[in-house]
Amino acid sequence: MHILIVQAHNESQSFNAAMKNLAVQELLAQGHSVEVSDLYAMGWNPIASAADFGSRANPEYLIYALEQRHNHSQNTLAPDIQDELDKLLKADLVIFNFPIYWFSMPAIMKGWIDRVLISGVCYGGKRFYDQGGLAGKKAMLAITIGGQPHMLVKDGVHGELNDMLKPILRGTLAYTGMAVLPTFVAYHVPYISLEARANLLEQYRQHLRSLDTLQTVTFVSLNEFDEKLHPVSATTI
Amino acid sequence: MHILIVQAHNESQSFNAAMKNLAVQELLAQGHSVEVSDLYAMGWNPIASAADFGSRANPEYLIYALEQRHNHSQNTLAPDIQDELDKLLKADLVIFNFPIYWFSMPAIMKGWIDRVLISGVCYGGKRFYDQGGLAGKKAMLAITIGGQPHMLVKDGVHGELNDMLKPILRGTLAYTGMAVLPTFVAYHVPYISLEARANLLEQYRQHLRSLDTLQTVTFVSLNEFDEKLHPVSATTI
Repeated sequence: MHILIVQAHNESQSFNAAMKNLAVQELLAQGHSVEVSDLYAMGWNPIASAADFGSRANPEYLIYALEQRHNHSQNTLAPDIQDELDKLLKADLVIFNFPIYWFSMPAIMKGWIDRVLISGVCYGGKRFYDQGGLAGKKAMLAITIGGQPHMLVKDGVHGELNDMLKPILRGTLAYTGMAVLPTFVAYHVPYISLEARANLLEQYRQHLRSLDTLQTVTFVSLNEFDEKLHPVSATTI
Repeated sequence: MHILIVQAHNESQSFNAAMKNLAVQELLAQGHSVEVSDLYAMGWNPIASAADFGSRANPEYLIYALEQRHNHSQNTLAPDIQDELDKLLKADLVIFNFPIYWFSMPAIMKGWIDRVLISGVCYGGKRFYDQGGLAGKKAMLAITIGGQPHMLVKDGVHGELNDMLKPILRGTLAYTGMAVLPTFVAYHVPYISLEARANLLEQYRQHLRSLDTLQTVTFVSLNEFDEKLHPVSATTI
C-alpha cells in the first residue's frame, strides 16, 4: 500500500510523535511506501478562506465549497492544498495521528480536513458515505488521550470514545467513502511511566502488523435511503 | 447579562454573519451588553503552539496544558489568548455562531477552543463537568448547516445532530461547567430562498427572546462518580 500519515503535535519529542515515527519505520519494514504530512513542522495553514483560491467563480461572494470545485477544475487551488490533495489521492490508507484536544482533533488538523477534503472530488451531491469520492481508500485514527479506558465507555464519565469521535469517524472519514479501520488509542499518556509508554508503542506496532486483518467499521449505505434521503422502510426494500 | 458572541465565517455577507448581526442588535435591544469576537475579521491564529507562551515552566519539552497554567500564573500568555480569556471570563453567556464544517466547527474556531479554554482556569484536575471552572456561565451554539432536518434525526442518513455535536456540547462546553442552552439550527441554508432565510432570522430572533425560559441541557454530574471516576453504583449512593 501507499500510506499517508497526517500528524499534528506541537512537541516533536512527544509520545505522539514517537507513534508517528514508529509507524513510518514499521510500515516501511512491511514493504509499504509512506509519506508524512507533519502539520506543525510544515507550518500548515488551517484557515479556510478566500486566499485558498487563485481564481473565483464568484468574486463578490465566497461560497467555499463552490470555489473548491471551481478552483479544482481550473487548477487554481492554493499550492499547499493541491499538494496535500495529491498526497491524499495517491494514498491507499490515510493515518491521522494526533492528540485529542477537546474530544476532537487539534485545530491545525481540523484545518487540513476543512481545506483538503474538497467538494467535487472527495464528496459532493449524492457522493457521500458508501458513494463518497474517496471510496476504495482506508482511513485510521492513531490517537493519544489523557483519560483512562474506564472513563470512555458507555457508563463512564465521558461516555463512549467512539461516540465522541463520531463527527470524525462517520461524519468525515466515512462521509468521503473511506473504509474506517479501528482506532488505535494510547490512553492516559501524560501520566504513565516510560515503561508503560514503551508497551503502548509495542501495542501500536502490533496494531500496524494486523492492518490486513483489522475489520473496517461500517456506518451507513445510501442504498437505505431514497432520492430525498428519507429512509427506505423495510417493507419497500 | 454580558454576552460574548464568538463567530467564524469566511464571508462577511453570509447568512451566518447576518445571524451574528441580528443577535447583536436583538440582545442590545433586550438591554444586555454584547461583545463580538469575529475570528476571521480578527485574523485569529488557531494554532496551539510554543509561541503562545511568554515564559516556560519547561523550555525543553512542551506540554501545552502545563504551560497554559504556568503562563496564566505568570501573566505571560500570548496577548491574543489573554484578550479572549478576559472576554470569556466577563461573559455570562457565550454564543458560538458558525457554519458546520464536517459536522463540527471551522478550524479557526476550534483553535479558539484549543487556545482560550486554558487548563487551570476553565478546567483542570477534578474541575470539569458540573465542577468545571466556567460553572455559572451559559453557552449556546447558533449554527448553519447544509442538511435538512430529516437527515439529522435518529433514523436519518447522518443520525441525530446532537450526537454529532456531542464533542462540542458535552465534551467542551459542559466539560468546562457551562450550562448548555438548546442549539439554534438554521438548516439547508445554501439552498433556500431569501424569504426562507428571512424566516429563519425571525426564528432566531424568537429563540433569542426566549433565552430566559430555554431549558439548559444537563449532561453529567461528577457526584455520580467516585474518586477515580468509576461510576458510583445506584446501591451505594
